[in-house]
Amino acid sequence: MSSNRVSTAYAYPLLIKQLLHTPLSNSPDQEIVSSNIKRYNYLEFRRRVGQLAGGLAALGVGMGHTVAVMDWDNHRYLECFFAIPMMGAILHTVNIRLSSQQILYTINHAHDDVLLVHADFVSIIEKIRHRFERPVKLVYMQQRPAAAIPSGFDAEYESMLAAADSAFHFEDFDENTPATTFYTTGTTGTPKGVAYTHRQLVLHTLGLVTAFSTASGNNRLHKGDVYMPMTPMFHVHGWGIPYAATMLGIRQVYPGRYEAAELLSLIETQGVTFSHCVPTILHMLLSAPAAQNIDLSALKVIIGGAALPDGLSKMALERGIEIFAAYGLSETCPVMTTADLTDAVDERGSDADRVRRRKPGKPCALVEVRVVDEQMNDIPRDGKTTGEIVVRAPWLTQAYIDNPEATEALWRGGYLHTGDAGFFDQTHSLIITDRIKDVIKSGGEWISSLELENIVSACDGVAEAAAIGLPDPRWGERPMLVVVRSCGAESKISADEIRQALRTHVDNGNLSKWAVPERIEFVKQIDKTSVGKPDKKVLRARYTRNYHSSLDIRQRIVTESV
Amino acid sequence: MSSNRVSTAYAYPLLIKQLLHTPLSNSPDQEIVSSNIKRYNYLEFRRRVGQLAGGLAALGVGMGHTVAVMDWDNHRYLECFFAIPMMGAILHTVNIRLSSQQILYTINHAHDDVLLVHADFVSIIEKIRHRFERPVKLVYMQQRPAAAIPSGFDAEYESMLAAADSAFHFEDFDENTPATTFYTTGTTGTPKGVAYTHRQLVLHTLGLVTAFSTASGNNRLHKGDVYMPMTPMFHVHGWGIPYAATMLGIRQVYPGRYEAAELLSLIETQGVTFSHCVPTILHMLLSAPAAQNIDLSALKVIIGGAALPDGLSKMALERGIEIFAAYGLSETCPVMTTADLTDAVDERGSDADRVRRRKPGKPCALVEVRVVDEQMNDIPRDGKTTGEIVVRAPWLTQAYIDNPEATEALWRGGYLHTGDAGFFDQTHSLIITDRIKDVIKSGGEWISSLELENIVSACDGVAEAAAIGLPDPRWGERPMLVVVRSCGAESKISADEIRQALRTHVDNGNLSKWAVPERIEFVKQIDKTSVGKPDKKVLRARYTRNYHSSLDIRQRIVTESV
Repeated sequence: MSSNRVSTAYAYPLLIKQLLHTPLSNSPDQEIVSSNIKRYNYLEFRRRVGQLAGGLAALGVGMGHTVAVMDWDNHRYLECFFAIPMMGAILHTVNIRLSSQQILYTINHAHDDVLLVHADFVSIIEKIRHRFERPVKLVYMQQRPAAAIPSGFDAEYESMLAAADSAFHFEDFDENTPATTFYTTGTTGTPKGVAYTHRQLVLHTLGLVTAFSTASGNNRLHKGDVYMPMTPMFHVHGWGIPYAATMLGIRQVYPGRYEAAELLSLIETQGVTFSHCVPTILHMLLSAPAAQNIDLSALKVIIGGAALPDGLSKMALERGIEIFAAYGLSETCPVMTTADLTDAVDERGSDADRVRRRKPGKPCALVEVRVVDEQMNDIPRDGKTTGEIVVRAPWLTQAYIDNPEATEALWRGGYLHTGDAGFFDQTHSLIITDRIKDVIKSGGEWISSLELENIVSACDGVAEAAAIGLPDPRWGERPMLVVVRSCGAESKISADEIRQALRTHVDNGNLSKWAVPERIEFVKQIDKTSVGKPDKKVLRARYTRNYHSSLDIRQRIVTESV
Repeated sequence: MSSNRVSTAYAYPLLIKQLLHTPLSNSPDQEIVSSNIKRYNYLEFRRRVGQLAGGLAALGVGMGHTVAVMDWDNHRYLECFFAIPMMGAILHTVNIRLSSQQILYTINHAHDDVLLVHADFVSIIEKIRHRFERPVKLVYMQQRPAAAIPSGFDAEYESMLAAADSAFHFEDFDENTPATTFYTTGTTGTPKGVAYTHRQLVLHTLGLVTAFSTASGNNRLHKGDVYMPMTPMFHVHGWGIPYAATMLGIRQVYPGRYEAAELLSLIETQGVTFSHCVPTILHMLLSAPAAQNIDLSALKVIIGGAALPDGLSKMALERGIEIFAAYGLSETCPVMTTADLTDAVDERGSDADRVRRRKPGKPCALVEVRVVDEQMNDIPRDGKTTGEIVVRAPWLTQAYIDNPEATEALWRGGYLHTGDAGFFDQTHSLIITDRIKDVIKSGGEWISSLELENIVSACDGVAEAAAIGLPDPRWGERPMLVVVRSCGAESKISADEIRQALRTHVDNGNLSKWAVPERIEFVKQIDKTSVGKPDKKVLRARYTRNYHSSLDIRQRIVTESV
């Protein structure tokens, strides 16, 4: 067959701007609500995207430049999600939870040309800007327009938009052009930069919608939903869901800074039906006094970033929330798998129902998930043997920026290594048993820190638990638990009571007897990473330092209990 | 930002084989039912796809070869949909409704290397094979395995599979590799070849799922559906829905040759919930005696290929069927827009509800639809001014094979020209008023043949109607109606009664008075194209030949009525 495309045929590139065709054509009047500061429709949103591009172009931004944003989740951030990549520039979503030194590192490492800074973060920038390694233009963003902008700033967001023509022409370019970049602080000291192209973000958007919208029940994303992010937009583009919500042209609500009372008020007054967050945020929301008087039964919440604890799923289901897990990494754009979102087959809220909702679940369209041994051979799919989860998808980080060693390790054998251990269960759902590096290897056997944490956090009187492995002269490693007691009357749970709860699972055959830890420490709070997960690196370091002092006692207990 | 992809990072190409990751991982035991001849699960389906590729490779098929299929809609066709393109070969879906001479033309024009022929089409091949312009290997396909294969055939499908190893390795290759080809006979004498690449088919699959699954109600495609095509698989890959259903891993039912009784029986016994067809097929189904005793209320049917007549939508709604229009062309893969699939806002079956269901509707994700004048300027979006509908999407035919003139016309100005006239209405839905070439231009005013047909086919006593424009010395053109009366007691409708019905619409302001035709002919049947649409080219030619004989009468009527 001869190839004979003519020059006039449009070779459609997958660019972020193309996501805007449907909302602008199908629902131009649909509303985007930004906390209590702004409210406009998609047409006005698109006009401001044009103005933002015009304003940034006037500041010198063009193809290949990097524009960084430090802001809460509001309409301006959504404008940046589109305008900056649509210009051919790269959107750097700065993690505002990092230390100022880490923020400085990422600004320099990403070669930022322009930095858009919300008033609340100006003090950070003033502290570090003398150490910027290249000229960085500063744009001031404030909650409501004010007269003065801080000294040293080049522009103010609203005045910049007002001065710009909205008719900025967004050219076509190669779909493999980088669109976004951000830094992940998972496992090593120095933040690692990842980047996503236009093609990757467009395909992720389609894959995500396909995953979240095709369930047979109504526990799914659809065009009648009202969407509000509760995962910060700097964190893997708010898991990419703002792009999906915009493409679907649905009503969107942006909450600004995350405060439980404001989030709850927006859910109530704006009728939010679809959101997503890490477990901590939902726990904060449901524990807030204001939550008790609000009807949350129209809400669907996808939980990611950490395993969905059973206790939280119970709390959520009791409030009528449809809660489900999903699974992804900063390196995977992020969505790879979602729990089975069908209507409950088992009684709603029953053990079986909660188990289903808490599973990382099933791969999204186009995502190839394998579970492999160290030689990249497939682990037998027998519902129990675990291995490392490796993936291919059209939206995976192709490289850590300027970090070939880490990239090589990430992509060993042509598959992205998630660093997670797990298996496929009998329902064809992926189950994650641990981070590979958090797996506790005791006496040659793998103990899942996640499994220990799940059991212990379900105990009455436990607010939170982290399991780590500590070096042990006899067993290689032994598990240890760090536990936060919950407030209130039932708060005096003892180490023995926790061990008793674990032994029940041993007796039921659900837990190996080697998994019951001798050492259990009660703490006021557990150290967290910048994305709110237990920082096991810190915990391991702290308790390994105490290793010698506790050795005698531990060995005695080991002898007793094993 | 430096680009530093390492060689081991997987640059994921959008290939048809990648659609199989999710069904094989998530629902390997799900069933595919092929009429009453075969029933197997997705794992077995995948095994046979491997065997088919192995068997074809043994016949010499490799990258860039073309393998043609002449079959009814069954499991073998689905195997071909995957195995042939997955090998890097091109699947030519032969339109079995064409004349043997046209079939010969397409086999030669597509440079077919192998032809898979169902027993029912062997006689056609025996008639034309001496005129094949290159060696074509023939593979025989039969309903059930038999001993002998016809003389001159090189292999039999099932024996070929049985002899092949299922472990055929499907290599990666460029996603822009052609995957499928077929011929369209819309507007000119000679069939025109179109081709689709792997990338286009994968993106169309995602776009289609996004369009059909994100409606807020339950009138949508979801993972709990049971799918059966009622658009032949040779017709734009069964509108691409077999690819979507396979990617979703849902239960599929293939009906073989379309017979009303068999289709109805499969709907009933297999619990079919999602299908699609041209109006004629659904009309045939609902008119069949067997239909009266079958519960069709779980069925959702997407209607395309021709406008959804109001009478048919009424019939379908009365039987509890969720019926909706969608819009596409052979050149657009095909889906571009779909009616609003939400639950009825207006009373189910009411006038407003039927109007909504019958609209071509709203663009799918990534589809850019413009309505333009001849200079490619946007027509004002005022809900009434019409223009030509032109589109861009990632899955549009880039060229007619070896036909640069037609290609140039198709892509004039960088947009694909649909040849349809229409506008966006106040609900942001696309409305199609006519084929550009079927528009009747009378006295300088455009008269929509579709509008005339809709009104007339809704009259009691009318089974079908086609409106055409005939040359007229005074008005340029005048509309004419060709009408098939329906059988039964009410079948004696007269031309005057039809004109009276049209005048009611004139009085209501819904129709220009110029649109009421003087000439109305009653016929036993209306000439159809190979895809079942009224063949207006033939009609115009026939009635223009009668032009002079009827001129006097017509002119008299014109004088009377205008």
